[in-house]
Amino acid sequence: MTYCLALKAQDGLVLLSDSRTNAGVDDVGVTRKLHLLETPSDRIIVLQSAGNLSTTQEVLDRLARDPTPIASAGHLFEVALHVGQLEQEVVAQHKDALEGADATASFIVSGQIGPAPVDLLMVYPEGNYLRASDDRPFLQIGETKYGKQILELGAAAFATVDEATKFAVASMVTTARENVAVGPPYDLALYREGTLDLQQRRFEEDDPYLELAAEVWERHLLAAIAELPTLDWPDPPAGAGDGL
Amino acid sequence: MTYCLALKAQDGLVLLSDSRTNAGVDDVGVTRKLHLLETPSDRIIVLQSAGNLSTTQEVLDRLARDPTPIASAGHLFEVALHVGQLEQEVVAQHKDALEGADATASFIVSGQIGPAPVDLLMVYPEGNYLRASDDRPFLQIGETKYGKQILELGAAAFATVDEATKFAVASMVTTARENVAVGPPYDLALYREGTLDLQQRRFEEDDPYLELAAEVWERHLLAAIAELPTLDWPDPPAGAGDGL
Repeated sequence: MTYCLALKAQDGLVLLSDSRTNAGVDDVGVTRKLHLLETPSDRIIVLQSAGNLSTTQEVLDRLARDPTPIASAGHLFEVALHVGQLEQEVVAQHKDALEGADATASFIVSGQIGPAPVDLLMVYPEGNYLRASDDRPFLQIGETKYGKQILELGAAAFATVDEATKFAVASMVTTARENVAVGPPYDLALYREGTLDLQQRRFEEDDPYLELAAEVWERHLLAAIAELPTLDWPDPPAGAGDGL
Repeated sequence: MTYCLALKAQDGLVLLSDSRTNAGVDDVGVTRKLHLLETPSDRIIVLQSAGNLSTTQEVLDRLARDPTPIASAGHLFEVALHVGQLEQEVVAQHKDALEGADATASFIVSGQIGPAPVDLLMVYPEGNYLRASDDRPFLQIGETKYGKQILELGAAAFATVDEATKFAVASMVTTARENVAVGPPYDLALYREGTLDLQQRRFEEDDPYLELAAEVWERHLLAAIAELPTLDWPDPPAGAGDGL
């Protein structure tokens, strides 16, 4: 499994990816899933990947072998379509030999090209894309359920990348707690609009910030329960219920 | 979709089921999924159901037509196996006509038979069962992911059914917020060990307790984020990252 998320704040982007890979529980590894693409200096493009690791690696290798489509794209959606097309080609190439095993991958493509606004797109395994919106200023790929609620609650608060980062970390820590196929190290990237430069940081498992986030999170969840009053019950009904 | 959960407290059981059914988004309905079975007075047995509604209804009808196996079972696991066998029979009967559509169902069977301790079992679509344990004193069927974390956090606190009820409500409210295929009314049942009587209550959508639970929950999640400090960043690195 994998969990990658990307938030669009008013002043830029927050990107966070886990790094756990597994081909069965007896084959667990660490692989970076957040990639800053090599591009001309007029643009910054980041790729986050989930799905079949063999496919994502070949897509990245093909992107590096022929960087022209990325270097010359006028819009980020063209990059997304190109990534989607490569993914389709790689999957088609190995499909017969894999005899039904899932070789698909999905991606989050984000960044800024020249003076255009920052953009944030998810590329489906089928090669088409979806853009983050003002109403839903985040995208997720991989194990998306456990960490979705806090992003929805926080969407209105993504005023700055620094604020949005807290929501991203909480979403990741929550997900990793619930699914052992998602785990550290976590790769974080902040893109502040207009800088054409990426701030990156890796959180190792024992990072004090992660430990603080987990502690604060659990404490508040339990505080919420403690604040709920005990439910009032009328006198126990005799034989109530929908007996068959 | 559906969400049913069952918690084992030190003094009894807390059972909670949503009631939303849907056969496509244009066919959404309300169906009770928590059923107190008609039994002799020496036992109390509750069935919660998820999955194909046609299958669960026929299983309930067959249980009512021939109550002997339930009435004479010496152990709750025998009831679980009987329910599993009926489910298998119903699915097999319609399988060919359904041409691959999923007709399976899963159940939570709980209650108490005579002087035996309360028991709590999940019946898989394959007909076998799993028991809640001291380490994991809850079971879920249906949409299980969104509401799992709070149950895991709270497991140590299931000292009383009244306390466990708060966790159950929080788990349900969270799940319904994230998946529109889970929704009110919610049917709650409390079983206090040794009483051989069930307390039941239905929460309608506008129940003040549900509204309070949702408000308290969201407020504490956002408070957790607010408590996290802004992440420290070193000076932006020039050209850092794993460029291809």
